[in-house]
Amino acid sequence: MTSNQPQLWRRAVAELLGTCLLVAIVVGSGIAAQQLSPGDVGLQLLQNSTATVLGLTVLILMLGPVSGAHFNPVVSLTDWLLGRRSGTGLTLAELGIYVAAQTVGAASGSVVANAMFEVGTSVSTKERVTPGHLLAEVVATAGLILLIFALAATSRGVLAAPAVGAYIGAAYWFTSSTAFANPAVTVGRMFSDTFSGIAPGSVPGFVGAQLIGAAVGLGLLLLLFPYAARTADDVVLPHSSDAAGR
Amino acid sequence: MTSNQPQLWRRAVAELLGTCLLVAIVVGSGIAAQQLSPGDVGLQLLQNSTATVLGLTVLILMLGPVSGAHFNPVVSLTDWLLGRRSGTGLTLAELGIYVAAQTVGAASGSVVANAMFEVGTSVSTKERVTPGHLLAEVVATAGLILLIFALAATSRGVLAAPAVGAYIGAAYWFTSSTAFANPAVTVGRMFSDTFSGIAPGSVPGFVGAQLIGAAVGLGLLLLLFPYAARTADDVVLPHSSDAAGR
Amino acid sequence: MTSNQPQLWRRAVAELLGTCLLVAIVVGSGIAAQQLSPGDVGLQLLQNSTATVLGLTVLILMLGPVSGAHFNPVVSLTDWLLGRRSGTGLTLAELGIYVAAQTVGAASGSVVANAMFEVGTSVSTKERVTPGHLLAEVVATAGLILLIFALAATSRGVLAAPAVGAYIGAAYWFTSSTAFANPAVTVGRMFSDTFSGIAPGSVPGFVGAQLIGAAVGLGLLLLLFPYAARTADDVVLPHSSDAAGR
Amino acid sequence: MTSNQPQLWRRAVAELLGTCLLVAIVVGSGIAAQQLSPGDVGLQLLQNSTATVLGLTVLILMLGPVSGAHFNPVVSLTDWLLGRRSGTGLTLAELGIYVAAQTVGAASGSVVANAMFEVGTSVSTKERVTPGHLLAEVVATAGLILLIFALAATSRGVLAAPAVGAYIGAAYWFTSSTAFANPAVTVGRMFSDTFSGIAPGSVPGFVGAQLIGAAVGLGLLLLLFPYAARTADDVVLPHSSDAAGR
Repeated sequence: MTSNQPQLWRRAVAELLGTCLLVAIVVGSGIAAQQLSPGDVGLQLLQNSTATVLGLTVLILMLGPVSGAHFNPVVSLTDWLLGRRSGTGLTLAELGIYVAAQTVGAASGSVVANAMFEVGTSVSTKERVTPGHLLAEVVATAGLILLIFALAATSRGVLAAPAVGAYIGAAYWFTSSTAFANPAVTVGRMFSDTFSGIAPGSVPGFVGAQLIGAAVGLGLLLLLFPYAARTADDVVLPHSSDAAGR
Repeated sequence: MTSNQPQLWRRAVAELLGTCLLVAIVVGSGIAAQQLSPGDVGLQLLQNSTATVLGLTVLILMLGPVSGAHFNPVVSLTDWLLGRRSGTGLTLAELGIYVAAQTVGAASGSVVANAMFEVGTSVSTKERVTPGHLLAEVVATAGLILLIFALAATSRGVLAAPAVGAYIGAAYWFTSSTAFANPAVTVGRMFSDTFSGIAPGSVPGFVGAQLIGAAVGLGLLLLLFPYAARTADDVVLPHSSDAAGR
Repeated sequence: MTSNQPQLWRRAVAELLGTCLLVAIVVGSGIAAQQLSPGDVGLQLLQNSTATVLGLTVLILMLGPVSGAHFNPVVSLTDWLLGRRSGTGLTLAELGIYVAAQTVGAASGSVVANAMFEVGTSVSTKERVTPGHLLAEVVATAGLILLIFALAATSRGVLAAPAVGAYIGAAYWFTSSTAFANPAVTVGRMFSDTFSGIAPGSVPGFVGAQLIGAAVGLGLLLLLFPYAARTADDVVLPHSSDAAGR
Repeated sequence: MTSNQPQLWRRAVAELLGTCLLVAIVVGSGIAAQQLSPGDVGLQLLQNSTATVLGLTVLILMLGPVSGAHFNPVVSLTDWLLGRRSGTGLTLAELGIYVAAQTVGAASGSVVANAMFEVGTSVSTKERVTPGHLLAEVVATAGLILLIFALAATSRGVLAAPAVGAYIGAAYWFTSSTAFANPAVTVGRMFSDTFSGIAPGSVPGFVGAQLIGAAVGLGLLLLLFPYAARTADDVVLPHSSDAAGR
């Protein structure tokens, strides 16, 4: 918690704005894909995942110096957990504010996407829970947490923007669930009954699997990078303009 | 306004050439896509957006050291506005010359693309104004301005070339308007009655929305990066060969 | 063999996990592609190769600092061969452990992918040996070995993650065999009777061609970079957090 | 002409091997695309251009430290022309050897690709000369020369590998000729009667247009970067392992 961090309200605005734009990218490109390539679902997913790789990378670059560009409650939660060991990281109060900002931002992202495409905002009817999809969310989230905090542990946070974008782009395809891997985004995607939507009934299962995945990822991190708890904070919290965050 | 900047005429040539090539890329790849994949508009847009991501990144890398590689009147305008506070940035006269060069370059880009594909140059008949599309232009332009000047404010202008390319690639998909986000390019795209064209009647609405978007982006910038006005000039104007500009 | 390397068991875990995830990416994205774009095999391969470019790059970034991120017996073998000259590199015992971890990891990767997509694990029936495919494996593996150790020889190991990802992405397309180029991955891909599978009868031919390819690649390396044997170890073995390995 | 350059014969081998692999990538991925996506020429070109972006970037990274990774007679020619002014660069004899190695390598690349796909090597029957295509070759080659030597002039040769790859990827699409932009590759592509082939009758026109384009690119370079002639050699010739060349 260095003194030259941006004020907490600025960091909360950055988390809200970034998560809003992330969901707008996921949902908006999904609507475009569905409208423009109606004949091939795989081509739709390729358009959707390509837009997300590019957009997520840019959002992390852009807002990392303000808030660390978490945009994801399990990232903030892991940061808090790792920071407790070393006396750094997010405090519990900051964690609450981050998660709230991410969730509100995510829901508003669906509203923005729906408005741009003149699609009414309504709750998704797309049920997504299957055993395979839940396993996929565990795998996708474990990999994401391991990646982010492995880069932090090895002082390579500057690579996090393209690495996280690329990871999610691969995970759209190699997991059966298309890799939500983010509780706030999962909640936000309830509010668009389009390609990227998720029915409310599927949200608890997905979020539960993501929490399990985060725990698995944290376990792998401590196994492979035993020094991770000492070093994570150097990158996961923004503390200078060239620590571009994640 | 450091003394080792290239002469103004060289910078104007770079803005003209860069905006010409940018429009040639957008319009030319649109024509190729339309001719080669006639059966799927989404696939056409994927080809068009992929070519633009790659080409825009390269143009910014190539010409950034000469002119800053604005290629966009709202970028030059924002640079002038931010520079007024700090006594740096483009002057009003330079702004006029940049915008003129960008506009002439953009129009000539359509002519070049049409000639390469042996398509006659004629005015587009593609009406594009809808409420959703205008909102999309506001969102796309706000994000672009925030991105460029956030990178400048945090001394990461060297990342601007791939970041701006990636942003536009995402915005092709997550906005309903396919993200023109550039008044000069909007004008230039009038001169090809092909995939990427825009009818003259739609231009004022798009340009107006882009100006509003630029104002929104500038507001977000000053909210999140309060020190932006002091630091923008370090990157947005070229002043050494390794400040690759944007 | 510097003293600040991670313990051997950690490096073995990293090789096992990384090769598991690599095969899960190749097999999983193949299943998704096959299910979502049933009408066009080329589009399936584009989805498969795009996911692999992104995912392989990320895996090398993530685990390079632990084990060097070989994920490939011919890479470990070449490292041992080059290291014998200079008295560095993997020892023969370490080579055995690396290859075992890679092979077990690869097989488990198919199981994970099958489980996520709720496809039963069974042995592939896809015969792949033809003269052209065997030549293609020689070419693909020669290029991979030359690339990795050329980067190491010129102190550019930090570029290996995106370079290896990009190379494999190109080799999916320019070789007729889709570029397995990796004996462990070849064995692992036996255990999924889906898009990316390979019948057991084709494995010996592919592995033999890969070994020949590795020898060709090593020969080209020593021809073009005669100093390679002295310098490879600086990058191919992890020895500090910023030597991201390959 | 620093003394720590690799011997000329090594540089010639690198030019031959690199141009061979470049043509194998272009021709091989073209054959794969044609076989796997028979229904959509645009999708074929997307597969072909994607493989080329990735593969060309990797080849330049890999062989740049040996020979400068020209792989293109007009690049070598421009290097000689610029070097005459400053007394550096390739000598006329070296230029001859480079061009010969590139041409032999390019032809052999078609043979390798044909063999991997078990397609007989025969001369292409694909006529490609039209006025639009010739203009496109002028534009594509001018942009390539301007890009390469602008990066060299501004001491950013390290960016040349991804920048040249990206440029060619865009030029596949925004030019009507799919951007050969390389006399050796043009000659090499005669030897495969497949997607990427070119009939002998079209070669002189394409090569002539490329030479004109190189002159245009050189003119633009000297207009925009008047100091280019003094600085090109620092990057275009390899002289240390971290000058990755182009």
